[in-house]
Amino acid sequence: MAYTGKVLRVNLSTGKAETEALNDKWAKEYLGGKGLSIKYLYEELEPGIDPLSEKNKLVLMTGPITGTIVPNSGKLAVAAKSPATGTILDCSIGGHFAPQLKYAGYDAVIIEGKSNIPVYLFIDDDRVELRSAADMWGKGAHETEHMISDRLGEVVTMAIGQAGENLLPMSCISTELYRQAGRGGIGAVMGSKNLKAVSVRGSKGLKAPDIRKLSAALNKIKKEDTLTEDNMWAYSDGTPMIVDLSQQTGILPTRNFQEGTFDEFEKVNSEAVKAVTKAKKACFACPLACGKYVETGTTRVEGPEYETIALCSSNCGISDLEAVLEFNRLCDDYCLDTISAGNTIAFAMEMTEKGIHDFGIRFGDVEKFLQMPELMSNKEGVGADLSQGVSYLADKYGGKEFAMQVKKLEIPGYEARGSWSMGLAYGTADRGACHLRAWPAAVEAFGDIDPFTIEGKAELVIDMQNDNSVKFSAIFCDFWALSTERMAEILSLILEREVTAEELTTIGDRVYCLARLFNEREGFTRKDDGLPERIHKDELTTGATKGKLLPKDEYDKMLSEYYKIRGWDEDGKVTADKKAALNL
Amino acid sequence: MAYTGKVLRVNLSTGKAETEALNDKWAKEYLGGKGLSIKYLYEELEPGIDPLSEKNKLVLMTGPITGTIVPNSGKLAVAAKSPATGTILDCSIGGHFAPQLKYAGYDAVIIEGKSNIPVYLFIDDDRVELRSAADMWGKGAHETEHMISDRLGEVVTMAIGQAGENLLPMSCISTELYRQAGRGGIGAVMGSKNLKAVSVRGSKGLKAPDIRKLSAALNKIKKEDTLTEDNMWAYSDGTPMIVDLSQQTGILPTRNFQEGTFDEFEKVNSEAVKAVTKAKKACFACPLACGKYVETGTTRVEGPEYETIALCSSNCGISDLEAVLEFNRLCDDYCLDTISAGNTIAFAMEMTEKGIHDFGIRFGDVEKFLQMPELMSNKEGVGADLSQGVSYLADKYGGKEFAMQVKKLEIPGYEARGSWSMGLAYGTADRGACHLRAWPAAVEAFGDIDPFTIEGKAELVIDMQNDNSVKFSAIFCDFWALSTERMAEILSLILEREVTAEELTTIGDRVYCLARLFNEREGFTRKDDGLPERIHKDELTTGATKGKLLPKDEYDKMLSEYYKIRGWDEDGKVTADKKAALNL
Repeated sequence: MAYTGKVLRVNLSTGKAETEALNDKWAKEYLGGKGLSIKYLYEELEPGIDPLSEKNKLVLMTGPITGTIVPNSGKLAVAAKSPATGTILDCSIGGHFAPQLKYAGYDAVIIEGKSNIPVYLFIDDDRVELRSAADMWGKGAHETEHMISDRLGEVVTMAIGQAGENLLPMSCISTELYRQAGRGGIGAVMGSKNLKAVSVRGSKGLKAPDIRKLSAALNKIKKEDTLTEDNMWAYSDGTPMIVDLSQQTGILPTRNFQEGTFDEFEKVNSEAVKAVTKAKKACFACPLACGKYVETGTTRVEGPEYETIALCSSNCGISDLEAVLEFNRLCDDYCLDTISAGNTIAFAMEMTEKGIHDFGIRFGDVEKFLQMPELMSNKEGVGADLSQGVSYLADKYGGKEFAMQVKKLEIPGYEARGSWSMGLAYGTADRGACHLRAWPAAVEAFGDIDPFTIEGKAELVIDMQNDNSVKFSAIFCDFWALSTERMAEILSLILEREVTAEELTTIGDRVYCLARLFNEREGFTRKDDGLPERIHKDELTTGATKGKLLPKDEYDKMLSEYYKIRGWDEDGKVTADKKAALNL
Repeated sequence: MAYTGKVLRVNLSTGKAETEALNDKWAKEYLGGKGLSIKYLYEELEPGIDPLSEKNKLVLMTGPITGTIVPNSGKLAVAAKSPATGTILDCSIGGHFAPQLKYAGYDAVIIEGKSNIPVYLFIDDDRVELRSAADMWGKGAHETEHMISDRLGEVVTMAIGQAGENLLPMSCISTELYRQAGRGGIGAVMGSKNLKAVSVRGSKGLKAPDIRKLSAALNKIKKEDTLTEDNMWAYSDGTPMIVDLSQQTGILPTRNFQEGTFDEFEKVNSEAVKAVTKAKKACFACPLACGKYVETGTTRVEGPEYETIALCSSNCGISDLEAVLEFNRLCDDYCLDTISAGNTIAFAMEMTEKGIHDFGIRFGDVEKFLQMPELMSNKEGVGADLSQGVSYLADKYGGKEFAMQVKKLEIPGYEARGSWSMGLAYGTADRGACHLRAWPAAVEAFGDIDPFTIEGKAELVIDMQNDNSVKFSAIFCDFWALSTERMAEILSLILEREVTAEELTTIGDRVYCLARLFNEREGFTRKDDGLPERIHKDELTTGATKGKLLPKDEYDKMLSEYYKIRGWDEDGKVTADKKAALNL
């Protein structure tokens, strides 16, 4: 058993930190990470609560493989009710926090209540303390991490910047400066609790079963199953590699999703990023090292990831790489989700250019663009509006049909009109428009499957969602293209019982359906699974997707098929039979 | 200048810790310690506030000599509005906290507001942090100190026990296990703020002027002015030495001040304590080492001090030294002021024996006596009533005429009927009945002056109050019998300007009058300077004080004379002329 069997529960209202046994039954049914954190939240959160109230809880959850010698086992699930969407929200964050937490003796931390003063939580094995963070409040995540390291020495810290303090629905949590739990306003959950940071140092061992057998099996899998840097097609140069793929296939969001190609893509693609890359950085136990540390005359930052380039470069009409890097650095420091930030700024640019509302910023306006992270994070000037995301802007000023969001979460970097299954993935993602629940663009736009048909797409998306649910629960990094069978093989050794691929698929399904049930309880139904009108009505005008749409009736058919295969009713509700089958 | 020039201000409501310049003008007028802390409180506290509300402030104040090579310079003033009396309250605490605070770079700490969770404050030079103390809440001061040392290593800690948490008006603050800021419920001020402890570590230097000159002067003074252990008459064996003196002169409070002698005094006097003393302990820079570490079969404790013996042994009719030691240890751990606790228990014993109200405890009942610290600190059973002190008990159950208190503060260990000036000292002490504002028993009952006349007593008490105000402001330990001229000599070297004895006397007068003005603002007048009826009406029946009273008319005459010499009006109010003379 690679669980520690202990959960640390910290109540910020009372200051009490107590340990309790990990719920074994739930751990078996949900593994860990995404699944298990959702289970805890489903059971513990009162329905209908304000995500920014003290009734929300923040769960930091490891998985059974976390901290073991299994490669790519460094990620942590960070979950809560989402301030952006009101749905369940689980994020994934890399680096070294998760293994340190496990070495400190905990599978998970559940943070409840609200402090009346800014604090940070320090977990040092059995010693758990809240400490005042008053002098860090108002500072960026980068300075905060440095301040804490100066005080505590070798610790791993997750922190929020001003965006989280100011409760932005697009605020993220940052660790090791450049890794983020990015979406759905998870940073604002910390902000609402007056929790500036969580630092951990673990010095305990972790019991791993039969290390020789595990080691031999892993060596075999690594050889056979592409876990070498050279073979990881998309990540050998990091995610910027995807810029060329998206450009070629016409799914690179450009000027607020008005086009699917960007003329100046070569200024911001993988080659361009490589030219300023100075070093690589890896998470715990990772041979890929997908993190790229870049330096230009003006900026030093780890990144940018593809999503940042797609949303903040092409989608904002910004081709100046240095500006994108600096924007990336500012967002990391203030703790803004670059997907939501870039998407929202692009919306404001289109609104301004169309004369619907003047936000004072236009496509390609580098100077204004670079002012946005600060203005948004501090809710100053035009930033006060923009900080609230596209859905808020559309409600207030119009333009709803091209507010590119699902369930109020801004759409990431893949044009659904050029990858219809991505549309379905966005519509059915548990936390709102997301590319990490399923990323079918990989096999459709970038692979052999026809992007412009709904044929087989529901099943494809479901398989990927279930598979990813297992990955994010176990927790394997999603950049390791590992089959369900392989995961079963590894988990059998770690959990010391036979784990089959079928069991894992069921777990993936269970996790996904539980997330759905959480949202259902909050009032979400089929109507919330729709896409913005632009995807159905505005033809793309350039490149491989010229003239393309994802017609609404096709989308609706695909969605119905999806529900049917899932065992959900026509309104998207999980049926009683399905619940029974999954023991929900 | 031996000031650091910096004040640390910590707001527990916001978590902010900020430094500000020490008010130089005030420092000149009030020196430091008692005087300067009262000045800050007088200026900053809104009149009429509840002492247990977040509007009260806790001031930790060093003096100009604190942390220098001047002997006996280890004490700290701890001040606030008193929860017991509603008056100004300054306490003095020994050990090593004060010099550490100075070495951390601060003359003072002002603690404001209220935390919503239990916290402790850690001052580590420039780094100032609030940390959760949730796991310490409900624990004694001793375990709290140990827990903090385990975490922080070499620090000096002031902490509260359960009595402070439960807001007892007789709760104290403890440091180094056995040193207390004892009176007036100063521990409850910390408790009301959810502040469990303050820890400090200082590693900075302290600028002291012309060290050779200072050193030479101090060597000369030490030789001429009795600062050797042998010559310190009362303290060579620690304060238990006073038991014999009080017994001989008939001023040892016995059975709730019904008698002035205790038949079994030899079981608890200095010789008896010496027999179980294992070691001595000194505060910072102190050659006296008045702290006695005693061990018996059942108890280990530093103490008992004379006051503890007088109030908890003779005054409760308890002659079992081991019981007194254990009671002392319990009080130190729970953080009960032994003077108020012993006095209150004695009152309950008399009430029970007289049949006025049955508190279930009688004089000499060791078993019940030893249950009291826990019951009172946790407000359980009969302890709930007793925890509130004699004034509360008398209001609720009667017996006001022998509730031995002034301004609701329980009278310490000297019988005023056998030392009339002690009566005046109690009546005019700024924080209620106190022997540390002036201790004229030393020259009257224990010296050459006739105890049973009011002749010259007002002047005697005023001189001592002024002198002690200087000592507690500079801060010299009051156990160093140093003349005002000597203090002026030392302070001239430390402050690098000519300080005269006259200036110091004026400062002492100013400090004392400012304290009076604070109380005046809170509604205190002459009527509050009265003594309990027993002192005026019940003749003592044994020993040297047999048949003695302090007649009310004599007391009133003495009080009027006191006011007149002080420059206060007949109602005890500081006159406009006096205020002008003192620049108040």
